[in-house]
Amino acid sequence: MLNINSTRLTQRLDELGRIGADEGGGVTRLTFSNADKEGRDLLVRWMRELGLTVQIDRVGNIFGTRRGETDQQPIMFGSHIDSVKAAGKLDGCYGVLAALECIETLNEQNVQTKRPLVVAAFTNEEGVRFTPGMLGSAVYVGDLSVDDAWNLRGFDGSRFGDEIQHVGYDGTMEPGAIQPFAYLELHIEQGPLLDLKRVPIGAVDAVVGITWLEVTVSGAANHAGTTPMDMRHDAGLAAAKIVTHLREIATRLGGHQRATCGMIQFLPNAINVIPSKAVFTVDIRNSDGEDLKRAEAMLVEFVQKVEAEDGVSIEVRALEHVLPVQFHPMVIEAVEKSAREMGLNQIRMVSGAGHDAQLMAHKFPSAMIFVPSREGISHSPKEFTPPDDLANGANVLLNAVMELASHE
Amino acid sequence: MLNINSTRLTQRLDELGRIGADEGGGVTRLTFSNADKEGRDLLVRWMRELGLTVQIDRVGNIFGTRRGETDQQPIMFGSHIDSVKAAGKLDGCYGVLAALECIETLNEQNVQTKRPLVVAAFTNEEGVRFTPGMLGSAVYVGDLSVDDAWNLRGFDGSRFGDEIQHVGYDGTMEPGAIQPFAYLELHIEQGPLLDLKRVPIGAVDAVVGITWLEVTVSGAANHAGTTPMDMRHDAGLAAAKIVTHLREIATRLGGHQRATCGMIQFLPNAINVIPSKAVFTVDIRNSDGEDLKRAEAMLVEFVQKVEAEDGVSIEVRALEHVLPVQFHPMVIEAVEKSAREMGLNQIRMVSGAGHDAQLMAHKFPSAMIFVPSREGISHSPKEFTPPDDLANGANVLLNAVMELASHE
Repeated sequence: MLNINSTRLTQRLDELGRIGADEGGGVTRLTFSNADKEGRDLLVRWMRELGLTVQIDRVGNIFGTRRGETDQQPIMFGSHIDSVKAAGKLDGCYGVLAALECIETLNEQNVQTKRPLVVAAFTNEEGVRFTPGMLGSAVYVGDLSVDDAWNLRGFDGSRFGDEIQHVGYDGTMEPGAIQPFAYLELHIEQGPLLDLKRVPIGAVDAVVGITWLEVTVSGAANHAGTTPMDMRHDAGLAAAKIVTHLREIATRLGGHQRATCGMIQFLPNAINVIPSKAVFTVDIRNSDGEDLKRAEAMLVEFVQKVEAEDGVSIEVRALEHVLPVQFHPMVIEAVEKSAREMGLNQIRMVSGAGHDAQLMAHKFPSAMIFVPSREGISHSPKEFTPPDDLANGANVLLNAVMELASHE
Repeated sequence: MLNINSTRLTQRLDELGRIGADEGGGVTRLTFSNADKEGRDLLVRWMRELGLTVQIDRVGNIFGTRRGETDQQPIMFGSHIDSVKAAGKLDGCYGVLAALECIETLNEQNVQTKRPLVVAAFTNEEGVRFTPGMLGSAVYVGDLSVDDAWNLRGFDGSRFGDEIQHVGYDGTMEPGAIQPFAYLELHIEQGPLLDLKRVPIGAVDAVVGITWLEVTVSGAANHAGTTPMDMRHDAGLAAAKIVTHLREIATRLGGHQRATCGMIQFLPNAINVIPSKAVFTVDIRNSDGEDLKRAEAMLVEFVQKVEAEDGVSIEVRALEHVLPVQFHPMVIEAVEKSAREMGLNQIRMVSGAGHDAQLMAHKFPSAMIFVPSREGISHSPKEFTPPDDLANGANVLLNAVMELASHE
């Protein structure tokens, strides 16, 4: 088994992490910002130093190709290097720089692979400056057109097409031009499971589907003192019942079902007035598309019960629907085999967050490898994974890629 | 039985209602505003035209005294003429102008009473410009000192003492100098009960006590997708459980128990983040002080249960405690006798809102008369009571005052 150089991986993570670093210990490299350009330049320099052929596509996705013994479809592996505001150093960057480290290890050991290898860094995965997130991979698989991407407006009013030209990453390669045999993405879990179970490797076999709903309850504002309890149409109470019921839905469905109310607002929001209106959001996720629909149906059924009980009217509006994605057995098994041969404990798991791999999976056999995130913390300067866990993940990646690259 | 002149009462309500009227059909006469001064001037002119001796006390309470056959303690009756923003014409004004109408009826009929009669208009009942509300009556019974009242700052930064001098209502009479034998206040219900039951008269025997609480739930912010349900410390869910339980508390205690959550806020308030914090208010009211304490204890008990179940910590902070007030049997019975003799249906009821009578009751035998408010709407230009109901209330007031004034 080949082993990567953990020190070198950590050094690269630290060096890229210094670009866009802020005083609070966080990193901010929003898509096509000056910091993002600087990070991209560093990545491209590293790719060239390792002998990779660099190609940039029309939405700024970066690909570094290492020649194989054949011209068969390559194995692509990577992630993204853009960040949220005040992020940690690992989210995305770890997958890209571990891929570079795999290349450097192969170069050092003078190992050739049958299929070519492609290190990938996708544009605007975080979706902080431009919505939607996972934009680069969405364009890559044809879910979004280049023109539509270029016409997007950022939260700061800037246009994607202007900003990509500003940083000089408006490449000429047609998105999708490299058709990988398999895509593999290594990432920190951004959840607590591996850390809690003290398991170093997660073989990710699915990404949850997400339904975002906005629920608006309309009742009647009345005096909190003079209105008898049985004459109320309390929008706040109705909302509280539904929010409480979300937990019940998740418990009843079990498995990977999640249900969360993250935002709420009452109107008129006065201490002595029964709320006339309550607006709140619902985030439900499941790796099983049928269960996700079931959860939404259970919610709607309960909403109707509350409408009747409380004399309020309730509108449920879908804000977003993302279908769950099942990864490819060939790629998942390559990960599992690699971890097994390295003697590392592993579990199969589901990703609760979105990743470029779920878009790539629309077209190419894909999977992911997760390593522990301490306390599940991510999108924060407190994001942390011990160097040994980072090395384990990179080694599993390297050997899984080797396995896939040897495929007929 | 004496009968007041309904047309004259309505005319006076309309005339006072034009002062501070806005384009939306509402009335705004905040304490010591120019409109309040104009309203006070009109009231004082009317008092003088009816032969009353006008006295202004040091916090601007206005008293108009009609001589009795004896110098025994007088019967005081009235309310307030300040308003909330965009108020109706009736809240407060009805009680004062009905009292004037009683005086005019007695004058016309040349009726003398054994005890003197005093029409009262208290300062800053609404508490919109200066907190606390019911300020004039609180000073009158010695619950608040004149100095403390003068040093209050309004929401606009103005000082009570400056503003009272500005409008020239800084009188010389010592608050409490007139010691009434009884105080009686006629008011629209500001709740839906009389309107719904189609009963013209409510003999109010108590005012609810009020407890205002602020509940702060502290949990942990985590990713809505990656955090398993059983590893959450969801402050929003805990808040929703407690808000739902408020209704349960009110139902279990029954009677006049009210429980309301009017305000809520989640932090960080993001669609895909489990709330780390939830802050909400609780308004609980009961005319029975023991039941009010019981409701608070039931809430605290449930809060502790939720803390244990949900792994959150919860702080309950009292914002306000107002004790319930029981009115005086002598005054309540005078109201009931008057309504009975006028052939008007009546019920005993509790006031769910605060009134000057509840402060006056701290020192003097007091009670209130309620008339219907259409759909319970108040503090709104839509506030409405039919003229016949207004006349009925004024007649019950007149005859109850006559009864009390004849008391030994």
